Amino acid sequence: MPFNESGGKEMTDNRLFDIDEWKVKTTLLNKKERRLQESLTSIGNGYMGMRGNFEETYSGDHHQGSYIGGIWYPDKTRVGWWKIGYPEYFGKVINTMNFIQLDIVIDGEKVDLYTDTITDFEMELDMQHGLLNRRYVIDKKGKKAAVNVERFVSLDQKELCAIRLSVTSLSDTIDVELIPALDGDVTNEDANYEEKFWLPVASKANTLVIETKPNDFGIEQFTVGATMTNRVTHVEKTGEVLTPMKVSETYSGNLTPGQSATIEKRVVLTTSRDYDPEKVEQQSQVISQAVDALSFDELKRRHQTLWLERWQKADIEIGGDPAAQQGIRFNLFQLFSTYYGEDYRLNIGPKGFTGEKYGGATYWDTEAYAVPLYLALADQSVTKNLLTYRHNQLPEAEHNARQQGLKGALYPMVTFTGVECHNEWEITFEEIHRNGAMAHAIYNYTNYTGDETYLKEKGLDVLVGISRFWADRVHYHRTKDQYMIHGVTGPNEYENNVNNNWYTNKMAAWTLRYTLSVLPLAPLKKEELHISEEELDKWQDIINKMYYPYDKEQGIFVQHDTFLDKDLRPVSALDPAELPLNQNWSWDKILRSPFIKQADVLQGLYFFRDEFSTEEIERQFDFYEPMTVHESSLSPSIHAILAADLKKMDKAVAFYERTARLDLDNYNNDTEDGLHITSMTGSWLTIVQGFAGMKTTDGRLSFRPYLPKNWQNYAFHINYRDRLLKVSVTSDEVKIALLEGEPLDMAVYDEAVLLKQVYTCKTVAV
Amino acid sequence: MPFNESGGKEMTDNRLFDIDEWKVKTTLLNKKERRLQESLTSIGNGYMGMRGNFEETYSGDHHQGSYIGGIWYPDKTRVGWWKIGYPEYFGKVINTMNFIQLDIVIDGEKVDLYTDTITDFEMELDMQHGLLNRRYVIDKKGKKAAVNVERFVSLDQKELCAIRLSVTSLSDTIDVELIPALDGDVTNEDANYEEKFWLPVASKANTLVIETKPNDFGIEQFTVGATMTNRVTHVEKTGEVLTPMKVSETYSGNLTPGQSATIEKRVVLTTSRDYDPEKVEQQSQVISQAVDALSFDELKRRHQTLWLERWQKADIEIGGDPAAQQGIRFNLFQLFSTYYGEDYRLNIGPKGFTGEKYGGATYWDTEAYAVPLYLALADQSVTKNLLTYRHNQLPEAEHNARQQGLKGALYPMVTFTGVECHNEWEITFEEIHRNGAMAHAIYNYTNYTGDETYLKEKGLDVLVGISRFWADRVHYHRTKDQYMIHGVTGPNEYENNVNNNWYTNKMAAWTLRYTLSVLPLAPLKKEELHISEEELDKWQDIINKMYYPYDKEQGIFVQHDTFLDKDLRPVSALDPAELPLNQNWSWDKILRSPFIKQADVLQGLYFFRDEFSTEEIERQFDFYEPMTVHESSLSPSIHAILAADLKKMDKAVAFYERTARLDLDNYNNDTEDGLHITSMTGSWLTIVQGFAGMKTTDGRLSFRPYLPKNWQNYAFHINYRDRLLKVSVTSDEVKIALLEGEPLDMAVYDEAVLLKQVYTCKTVAV
Repeated sequence: MPFNESGGKEMTDNRLFDIDEWKVKTTLLNKKERRLQESLTSIGNGYMGMRGNFEETYSGDHHQGSYIGGIWYPDKTRVGWWKIGYPEYFGKVINTMNFIQLDIVIDGEKVDLYTDTITDFEMELDMQHGLLNRRYVIDKKGKKAAVNVERFVSLDQKELCAIRLSVTSLSDTIDVELIPALDGDVTNEDANYEEKFWLPVASKANTLVIETKPNDFGIEQFTVGATMTNRVTHVEKTGEVLTPMKVSETYSGNLTPGQSATIEKRVVLTTSRDYDPEKVEQQSQVISQAVDALSFDELKRRHQTLWLERWQKADIEIGGDPAAQQGIRFNLFQLFSTYYGEDYRLNIGPKGFTGEKYGGATYWDTEAYAVPLYLALADQSVTKNLLTYRHNQLPEAEHNARQQGLKGALYPMVTFTGVECHNEWEITFEEIHRNGAMAHAIYNYTNYTGDETYLKEKGLDVLVGISRFWADRVHYHRTKDQYMIHGVTGPNEYENNVNNNWYTNKMAAWTLRYTLSVLPLAPLKKEELHISEEELDKWQDIINKMYYPYDKEQGIFVQHDTFLDKDLRPVSALDPAELPLNQNWSWDKILRSPFIKQADVLQGLYFFRDEFSTEEIERQFDFYEPMTVHESSLSPSIHAILAADLKKMDKAVAFYERTARLDLDNYNNDTEDGLHITSMTGSWLTIVQGFAGMKTTDGRLSFRPYLPKNWQNYAFHINYRDRLLKVSVTSDEVKIALLEGEPLDMAVYDEAVLLKQVYTCKTVAV
Repeated sequence: MPFNESGGKEMTDNRLFDIDEWKVKTTLLNKKERRLQESLTSIGNGYMGMRGNFEETYSGDHHQGSYIGGIWYPDKTRVGWWKIGYPEYFGKVINTMNFIQLDIVIDGEKVDLYTDTITDFEMELDMQHGLLNRRYVIDKKGKKAAVNVERFVSLDQKELCAIRLSVTSLSDTIDVELIPALDGDVTNEDANYEEKFWLPVASKANTLVIETKPNDFGIEQFTVGATMTNRVTHVEKTGEVLTPMKVSETYSGNLTPGQSATIEKRVVLTTSRDYDPEKVEQQSQVISQAVDALSFDELKRRHQTLWLERWQKADIEIGGDPAAQQGIRFNLFQLFSTYYGEDYRLNIGPKGFTGEKYGGATYWDTEAYAVPLYLALADQSVTKNLLTYRHNQLPEAEHNARQQGLKGALYPMVTFTGVECHNEWEITFEEIHRNGAMAHAIYNYTNYTGDETYLKEKGLDVLVGISRFWADRVHYHRTKDQYMIHGVTGPNEYENNVNNNWYTNKMAAWTLRYTLSVLPLAPLKKEELHISEEELDKWQDIINKMYYPYDKEQGIFVQHDTFLDKDLRPVSALDPAELPLNQNWSWDKILRSPFIKQADVLQGLYFFRDEFSTEEIERQFDFYEPMTVHESSLSPSIHAILAADLKKMDKAVAFYERTARLDLDNYNNDTEDGLHITSMTGSWLTIVQGFAGMKTTDGRLSFRPYLPKNWQNYAFHINYRDRLLKVSVTSDEVKIALLEGEPLDMAVYDEAVLLKQVYTCKTVAV
């Protein structure tokens, strides 16, 4: 198994859910791994979402978390020793009110899924329809009742979360109470000193309004209003409790054996991001009334229809490997639950709506890993929105550069507003290659879509800002007559403060070159941005004289200046018990070791595959991959793509499984904190760019599909320049169908093809 | 001015106090720089001490701080992102109760030195007698009164702080109240979240007992008890207030013009470090009774006598330069106030009793900078105590190494117990050269005193522990057949995570060599410490094959592998407004710059001066010094000594002034946080090791005295191997008198001398 070679564990070690092509399901209420179960049953609709928490009480260890996109809090930066350049605050995703809460009381005793006797438990995330369903039988002192719960956050009405819960008496007559609530008194897992982030605003019958507490950093306070309505059968309202931070209603009834009580709880959440703070409450009520006019089944039908439509455009089918099939669908489901491009003010947070860790709304992951997927699976306006998000934050990026005493623009590692929030010098100040990913995404968008409007109107502002940063960040080495970049952290965060990271130097010089090459497209920009000839000359000089560490003897692009002085050895030389390193080794040992967290030199080869020969790429792959521990969720996919390129298909498939099932199989032992949303694009990239070999070199689409050994077939859709294509690959045949749009000049296996309706050819075996 | 070259500012910029040979005095109540004034008027007696706070209320910005040696609190470690190897807690010096508090009320209104009209203000720290005196005239609504305050912490009775305060009516009849108090409700400047660290235990007439709050780290809670007695004239007791955290008494009276009221407040503080917690209160009362039997003048006389005795043994006289004279005396006064060797459980904290910054009881400063001074100025048992302190903490040092996954012993950067408290990976995990200083101090003690008992009984345990650490921390470079040390921070903390820091590699190899050379002195240790032949061979192999970065062309010992790739330029190329860098530049710019915080390669040359030729040392000095910003208080003295060695006397004197008057002239702009206690040895080192050229190479004492140009003469005492010497230097003559002990074989200006009574020779001019 390639993965044991690389120190990965057996895939099934941490598999909590059954293999199913469209579902994530289990019959086990796993109290030991409840947090992990919660992460894996998260749902969302781009506007809001939540972990797979129970509506009922669960008193065991778990992580309650419901989140609304763009609602955050600037918490005091926490550092051991302050350094000039550190950001003032750390913006964190905050748990919003618990609006799914719906307690069940049987014969006067509250149901607690942690302490009660539960049998016949079933839980399933239905990815095809965007539903979380659950059922079980509870035994309360010998009296049995069946409970059934459905939940979704609506794609049709973004503010709506709907829950249907029923209790059926199975053996005796029981008194049942159902207590739906809105509870604003919530905590955050990620808080400096267990402080809470919410204050009460208003609490009235069926409506709760709360706001984030004030802060010292001039960041707006957010108001969130929630209105709940409850439709019930076989119970009736018997009480209501209002406190400043909680609204609840009690419905009571008596069930004879076989009888069921049902409650349909609908919650509508509005926020000050969309309405004036003082109108938030009223708007939640207005929308609530509209929603209340429809039946639960109708609401559900509308929601499901939209999920089915998404799948029609984006589904990838894999024949013969249900685990692989489940993996890719899970990833696409969670990605789309997090972001589907509706709100240009939002971005793709690393944990989406599934956890709090890492804070921030966006990382360089968006540009490096998500842009290619959204380009191919959604309207090009979605990607344009992602790019516009960065253009809007250009002044803040300039602020970040000034914080370091540098010119130009430095896009942040972690942010909500564009202002840097991360507070480790080795990352904040040094992991500056992120700036290159911003530039590369502009290239990617323009090259993929052929649309130069973003580039001309906005992209150049960003490119010039980034270029100015690079030009100030390099230094000139007099005796060597070369430019160097000292003091950086590359994508491999297991080394810090290195000199001349090959990838960073490459990205810097590439940005300068790309900027120079596209500047003529918008002749007015030069004056508008006050670009002098001297500045352009300086950029050209840096491009010409950039230093790249290179080992002639071995033909290796050296990760950074002194990498080859390390005690180089493969991961296979380690005792597997030491893995993952980040959970077993001191930071000192990690830093000094040759072990690589994620693609670094290889990330550069992935971005610029066309610049290098297969032999060159293979040499680097064979040198670096054996030392790579893939302890970043972003690592396996890049290696999978390169491995597929190099026709190392077994390795590629193994990497695919790791990226596709990273969370489902909890490879990195940290999915309990939330899903690795931004790395979920990796499985798609692997299939499309790796197995199917899709490239868009110089604006021409091409494929070079291979079929992994244990797959029977696979198929996917691609949006490309106003066309919709379907690519199907079996062991015999590659079939490319033009479903929509004009004929297209493209290439398959390096052969020119004019695609009119359907093109087929024989699949090349590896 | 050499200092402007190096970016230092004019000396007098921040001079708050007058030049005086024995006093630190001023007639200015400086409200803008009150914190700085407080730092500079700190007093202490090794057991306890406090900043120069006022007894009366001062409502303006200031920093109230009284400290008792060895009383601390383990606060939660605060980091942005946790890394394996980080310590659990950060031990911090905590402000103990405010026991000097003594409010004055005139005609019903409390005196507030911040808001009241104050004239004729005078304050003086009398260093010769260890007294802090203060007087002023207050104008309360036209009524004038003179106030006079004296304070000392007794050298004769360590638990005693005595205050005498008098109020004299100058113009009218006034009602006066005097309110002495013990106030446990204090805050810390250095607290994570403004929390307080003290809880009440008992509060009764004239006694307050408090204890540190519980902690999660198994560290003992400390109990502190204070008993106060007040002798008064012209006022009588009219009230008393007891709250759980405060005890106060009120004395009232009426003063006609010219009449004075006086109060003598004596506070005795005992702690659970010396007594069972439940006996702390009783013991404070017992000692208080004994103290109370003596008059204030008698208490003061005894205290002063002991200070005069200290000066007799340790004073340095400088003729013709009162600023230099004041500087050295201030440093010796503050050093002795902090530590005079009475308590082997204590060490020399970086701020002594003058502030809280940096936390911890000891840094490597003790071994590198303080040991030589205490060896020469105090009984050898004092230094032996300092070394024993480390031997006692060997198990904790082994724990620290294990925390990093390494063998042997790693002495901490910051500690109270031996367990590391610092929480920056680049320091905690990487500034490991500190371990070498521990070994070097053992060599220093043994070489200076000729006493091998510590080495044989305890020192070898420490040396072997450190050697094992080095042997595990190096790695072997196969192709170069050399040993390297990657991932370190050298003494120059303005570079982090560098490879093969010359100084660190030097210290590591030296430790191994010294350990191997002295191991035969205690033949049983090899078995006791389970040292195998293989282990010894490995050490020898590392010594033989240690890699030292060296630039052949320039003959430079290179600070670390890639230092010469930097944009090398002198400090003089900088705009002076950018200095000090650590207050103006982002950490990113500092790290990438060639500017050096403190002696690094040169620190190694200082330790091992005899190994290198003058030409070699001069080459390094001329290369590195111009790039050095001296932003560590430990920097100028090492440069001064080397400059004196190299006969660069102007430079040496300029460095001397910077080290001697670092705090008095607030060179580093941070003395408001407290004094730089551990670097105060620097001025003594400069005079004795620099100007007088004292060495003890191979156990032979030698001098090579020079007289700085603008000095008329200087003289100092030296303890050396049961002898007391006085060295006096004028422009004409060097005179060395043997005041106590047997004749001594020594050398002056490289000439062998058998010192019997007095040796004189002509002073060599530079």
